[in-house]
Amino acid sequence: MIYFDNSATTLPYPEVIKTYEEVATKIFGNPSSLHQLGSQSSRILQASRQQIAELLGKRTDEVFFTSGGTEGDNWVIKGLAFEKQRYGKHIIVSDIEHPAVKESAKWLQTQGFEVDFAPVDKKGFVKVDVLEELLRPDTILVSIMAVNNEIGSVQPIKAISKLLADKASISFHVDAVQAIGKIATDAYLTDRVDFATFSGHKFHSVRGVGFIYKKIGKKISPLLNGGGQELGFRSTTENVAGIAATAKALRIVLDKAKIGQKKLSAMKKVLFDSLSHYDDAILFSELAHFAPNILTFGIKGVRGEVLVHAFEEHDIYISTTSSCSSKAGKPAGTLISMGIPSRLAQTAVRISLDEDNDMSQVEQFLTIFKQIYEKTKKVR
Amino acid sequence: MIYFDNSATTLPYPEVIKTYEEVATKIFGNPSSLHQLGSQSSRILQASRQQIAELLGKRTDEVFFTSGGTEGDNWVIKGLAFEKQRYGKHIIVSDIEHPAVKESAKWLQTQGFEVDFAPVDKKGFVKVDVLEELLRPDTILVSIMAVNNEIGSVQPIKAISKLLADKASISFHVDAVQAIGKIATDAYLTDRVDFATFSGHKFHSVRGVGFIYKKIGKKISPLLNGGGQELGFRSTTENVAGIAATAKALRIVLDKAKIGQKKLSAMKKVLFDSLSHYDDAILFSELAHFAPNILTFGIKGVRGEVLVHAFEEHDIYISTTSSCSSKAGKPAGTLISMGIPSRLAQTAVRISLDEDNDMSQVEQFLTIFKQIYEKTKKVR
Ligand SMILES: Cc1ncc(COP(=O)(O)O)c(C=O)c1O
Ligand SMILES: Cc1ncc(COP(=O)(O)O)c(C=O)c1O
Repeated sequence: MIYFDNSATTLPYPEVIKTYEEVATKIFGNPSSLHQLGSQSSRILQASRQQIAELLGKRTDEVFFTSGGTEGDNWVIKGLAFEKQRYGKHIIVSDIEHPAVKESAKWLQTQGFEVDFAPVDKKGFVKVDVLEELLRPDTILVSIMAVNNEIGSVQPIKAISKLLADKASISFHVDAVQAIGKIATDAYLTDRVDFATFSGHKFHSVRGVGFIYKKIGKKISPLLNGGGQELGFRSTTENVAGIAATAKALRIVLDKAKIGQKKLSAMKKVLFDSLSHYDDAILFSELAHFAPNILTFGIKGVRGEVLVHAFEEHDIYISTTSSCSSKAGKPAGTLISMGIPSRLAQTAVRISLDEDNDMSQVEQFLTIFKQIYEKTKKVR
Repeated sequence: MIYFDNSATTLPYPEVIKTYEEVATKIFGNPSSLHQLGSQSSRILQASRQQIAELLGKRTDEVFFTSGGTEGDNWVIKGLAFEKQRYGKHIIVSDIEHPAVKESAKWLQTQGFEVDFAPVDKKGFVKVDVLEELLRPDTILVSIMAVNNEIGSVQPIKAISKLLADKASISFHVDAVQAIGKIATDAYLTDRVDFATFSGHKFHSVRGVGFIYKKIGKKISPLLNGGGQELGFRSTTENVAGIAATAKALRIVLDKAKIGQKKLSAMKKVLFDSLSHYDDAILFSELAHFAPNILTFGIKGVRGEVLVHAFEEHDIYISTTSSCSSKAGKPAGTLISMGIPSRLAQTAVRISLDEDNDMSQVEQFLTIFKQIYEKTKKVR
């Protein structure tokens, strides 16, 4: 099996599952309980939080656990909006955000907030000059993703950080779900960033666990009110096993990252260069300023689904550009935002590599690609 | 070890952990992916949903997964409020709801909603006649828990169902987190109930998974917007392993329930009768109309925390009445609502039994209780 769909989800590391199982069965007390079974759990929880904070170069009290990337995005977007509505009701999110951000923003529109969707250029990068023009005195939030999930473009977070440097009343959120471990942390977790969203299952942890970075002192309304866990910011009995597993996964992933990113780049380059030689192959991703693991392409006249299924017959797993929209059969939002005509956008499929993939898989993929390319010639 | 804190959280069943591990490592595809790794996951997800629906006597498309009880409660309370605000902005929740409901309602107050907190009598039951008086033409939601988590009183859901029978514009939500497996399902999941909340870790599943029942056709605004999972009602990559584990746990728990409830009642009766003999012991829970697993009591003049720690020295784990408020050192909300003076309420501790506890543990507990009772005499 060749699994090239790692942006959709990853296989949890065996060590991660082991940690999960150990904590779930041995340290099962409720961290809120006063007795020692509670304090044991509480210690694991805090140790995991500390580890994650250290790995990100942040403070322990800046990390808050969630159920995943979607909750993190919803929480920051809505929670910030509700918290700051007295100061303004205008927010800006990029036009190529993941639906977790975009739909949250749209929901806020139904609640009387004004939203601008910052456009991207034809390669898939937010236009910082246009973003600047969109800023208003009542803007309370700017949310721009670090790495786009559909084509892998790395957004200009540093430039936007500069743009917002002297605008303290605007909170800056970065959806870092596809960035962690794939690009350098300081490329997206700048000092100016107030909030960032992460999701465990994208970096070999278990499903249903994520966390946000919330800069110390930044206020945000809870999305989950209740018993007062997570310093009152996010209530529910803590998923300690999942959290410990996530801390473990993050450590492993960031350990691997330095060498891993080189390996990913090398694999992507081979794929990129090889696919470039086919006349009817269209490359939607590039090399420079793109994540090293994501390569989105298409074959003119062949719908993405057809390609996905053709590769699947050879035990190779890729996806249409976003697993979320794939079932709805919607063309990829990012490509449309880039100005790519719908008919062309519908050809797009995404390869998303992982450190555990290797060059022999890349070569196998290319062999099969060639076959599929030839086969589909008749129908194109 | 004697673990009598099962209302705080339970130890996952070994079979549940096994299911979790198998699914997490073998069926790891993203259910939204178009390829077969996705469809495999999707099938497990749907099979789990179907199993849970059948166990509850409901339709498959009436079950929606969440990250736990708190999310379920927040979602229903806030989601219903946002969905129905055009029709009215008045909601009623009981005064003894779990903070997940109560704090959600209080948050809605900050957003312009009006909330009434329906009072309880001195035994801890919602006064149905007072609830009736609170109903208004603009009432959109009534939320009453099935089993109170602090003292175990079973709320009159059937009577309230009758009261609301001809009031179709009012949605009826039941927090069933402490009820499932402990009292008969039809005692709280009546035909009139529109929404109910459940949490896996309270019935031996893993942490971080829950579900809600949403009656077919009932509308509710999503709390988590995004990729459109769960029929668009709750987005995020589905925690398939946790969901499969939860379906498994529910089957086991409901299989055990018939015999289990008798066993629980028998253990509780011995505890109740024995503690009744101590002059300075106060029983806050009763037998009839109370859950068979929860017994809340105190020793006059001894703070709950002191009792928790005294038992802990003998490897016996109980809790102050709610693990959520325990660390905050707040007196139990339910007891205060019942009109019990704060000083007395602060003595309260909760025993919460499980089918896996047995009579010998009850006897050991009583032996230790006697010792602690004698010892604390001097300080009382
Ligand atoms: C950029 C981005 N943000 C958010 C999410 C949502 O994450 P999750 O599936 O953990 O809710 C995803 C993944 O689907 C993503 O790629
Ligand atoms: C009655 C009740 N509702 C809701 C909850 C919240 O559940 P969870 O901890 O799964 O968020 C609890 C447990 O803490 C509870 O006892």
